[in-house]
Amino acid sequence: MKAVAVMFPSREVRVLDVPEPRLHSPTQVKVRTLEVGVCGTDQEILKGDHGAAPKGEDHLILGHECLGEVMEVGAHVQGLKPGDLVVPRVRRPCPHTHCPACRHGHPDFCVTGDYTERGIQGAHGFCSEHFVEDAAYLHKADDSLRGVAVLTEPLTIAEKGLREVAHIQSRLPWKVSPGKALVLGAGPVAQLGAMALMRAGFDVTVYSRSPKPNEKAAAAEAVGAPYISSKEVTVEALKQQLGGGVDIIYEATGASKVAFDSLQVLEENGVLIFTGVPGREEPLELHGDQVLGQLVLGNRVMFGTVNAADSDFREALEDLARFRAKWPGRVEALITQRHPPSEFAKVVEAKGGIKHVISFQEHAR
Amino acid sequence: MKAVAVMFPSREVRVLDVPEPRLHSPTQVKVRTLEVGVCGTDQEILKGDHGAAPKGEDHLILGHECLGEVMEVGAHVQGLKPGDLVVPRVRRPCPHTHCPACRHGHPDFCVTGDYTERGIQGAHGFCSEHFVEDAAYLHKADDSLRGVAVLTEPLTIAEKGLREVAHIQSRLPWKVSPGKALVLGAGPVAQLGAMALMRAGFDVTVYSRSPKPNEKAAAAEAVGAPYISSKEVTVEALKQQLGGGVDIIYEATGASKVAFDSLQVLEENGVLIFTGVPGREEPLELHGDQVLGQLVLGNRVMFGTVNAADSDFREALEDLARFRAKWPGRVEALITQRHPPSEFAKVVEAKGGIKHVISFQEHAR
Repeated sequence: MKAVAVMFPSREVRVLDVPEPRLHSPTQVKVRTLEVGVCGTDQEILKGDHGAAPKGEDHLILGHECLGEVMEVGAHVQGLKPGDLVVPRVRRPCPHTHCPACRHGHPDFCVTGDYTERGIQGAHGFCSEHFVEDAAYLHKADDSLRGVAVLTEPLTIAEKGLREVAHIQSRLPWKVSPGKALVLGAGPVAQLGAMALMRAGFDVTVYSRSPKPNEKAAAAEAVGAPYISSKEVTVEALKQQLGGGVDIIYEATGASKVAFDSLQVLEENGVLIFTGVPGREEPLELHGDQVLGQLVLGNRVMFGTVNAADSDFREALEDLARFRAKWPGRVEALITQRHPPSEFAKVVEAKGGIKHVISFQEHAR
Repeated sequence: MKAVAVMFPSREVRVLDVPEPRLHSPTQVKVRTLEVGVCGTDQEILKGDHGAAPKGEDHLILGHECLGEVMEVGAHVQGLKPGDLVVPRVRRPCPHTHCPACRHGHPDFCVTGDYTERGIQGAHGFCSEHFVEDAAYLHKADDSLRGVAVLTEPLTIAEKGLREVAHIQSRLPWKVSPGKALVLGAGPVAQLGAMALMRAGFDVTVYSRSPKPNEKAAAAEAVGAPYISSKEVTVEALKQQLGGGVDIIYEATGASKVAFDSLQVLEENGVLIFTGVPGREEPLELHGDQVLGQLVLGNRVMFGTVNAADSDFREALEDLARFRAKWPGRVEALITQRHPPSEFAKVVEAKGGIKHVISFQEHAR
């Protein structure tokens, strides 16, 4: 079968002919790949900043954001049957028994760094016609989500982040009601984060680079999130536009200057969530004393979050259904283009659009 | 009666003769001041970086870390009687009904900034022979704590911080056991923080400026916390000395460079607590991309914490008793010098020693 892989050490993308995968255990499932999302992590892998092939191999099959359809199930698999839609999780536990996270089924918090991630780190991804996975790592998606469930994985980032915020804010000895939130960036992770924050009750504003009109601004405003361009409005002026500070900042750009500057619009007791891993930047000249003062005197929190757990995937699938009901057509509209597998490398470099997806069913068969 | 005050706008310290305070409500208590601790906040007030006199007045009576003895109680006061030792809280609620924090009795999380703080912000402090306070803001201290209870307030910083850490780490879906902690700084807040962390079960290392031998290093090592000098060991090398990273960093220096650098020794899922408000520093050249990468890829948290609540004062008083039992004489040894009230301004500038305390009973009567 065909698979899209990155070669090591050249980091060249190739369409390979690889052996058809087969069930090796009665808990496994064979899946036909329908769609694979392409994101910034893929770009980092191709640049050589991130990623590793499985041990002893010269290539890594790409693709970690995936929607597939069950072809065949092992004898012990319950709750899945051929034809069911499924979304796989990405990270697999490290082998160390002393890792409390992986031992408890939470590799998203792995402390050893020896986890694998399908399509990213030491394990083949899903950008092949078929793949085999243990049923424990597959989430059944409702048929109604056929057109959007490839967005599950990028949405899990917000689900995990908001779950962490709930724990963090339990430090406040009163029932905290959702207030205002600011989303930095307007790509898919940002747009899905904005929807998740709105669903949770926040008033959301999106702040990103390009001046209006542009399709990302239109997508945000179509679901009721005002869009402000950082090319036109400074962080200081943003506070005025917002009519005060915000309780949550959801950073999805990976640009550290904007991230640290945004502390200026974060209210007392507010939380700044970092989801973006920045590329290599020039050193940033920062008033470290101001950052510390803002954190300390306002009981503010900054935290980073990576990967997601079982519960986040379940919540993301439920949220996709809620988003579709609340904003008909708007989740679908985030997927601005579908491409054949052979165009993976081109898609990684694509300018414009919001989410680009590799479609196996429209093009590959 | 005599009171030590800072004049506005000159920021000059004077010993004033002020009217004897009287009970104005049946819930109030009149207290004889025994001891007042001097700290970095006092220094900032005298420098003009912080602090405000009560509205319409030209002076602020100083002193926010206090131990006193009850002289007289109002008719409705329960649980306190003349002769009892008491420690007052510092911050008082803002007047706004929309502040969820102050409305719920938690001005330590005030969102309006219109709180007052006795001895710091808009309300007279405790550095006078006597003061009057509502019983609701006084904590009874056991007689056995006579020599150390003036340290209650600086210890509450750690109590609040560790309470917040417990909430924050409830995001980890397993029972987190105390691991290693690093305390940055070796002043009173740092030393008390180290004791609180050790009491909670952490292996604590103290990392501060001055090379050994010095009395702060000796104080840390006397309770079992190894002391490493940042003049001799870089943050990178610190990780080797520690035998790996730490789970908690307790920052009590207010020096932002050390604070951000210390992220390099923070383990995955670790938490960095900022307690120190820095003075005005030169802009800090920071690799913002590295800081963000460390936060995101390791699920790390940084947060600031200020002031403390009712429960933190109660916990601090209990901890002082525990510390005394665990490390006889070591809490007492943190108070390296006692001075008469007239020396307040000199004490603020004092070099050397750990905690300097103004004693009203040895000198003033």
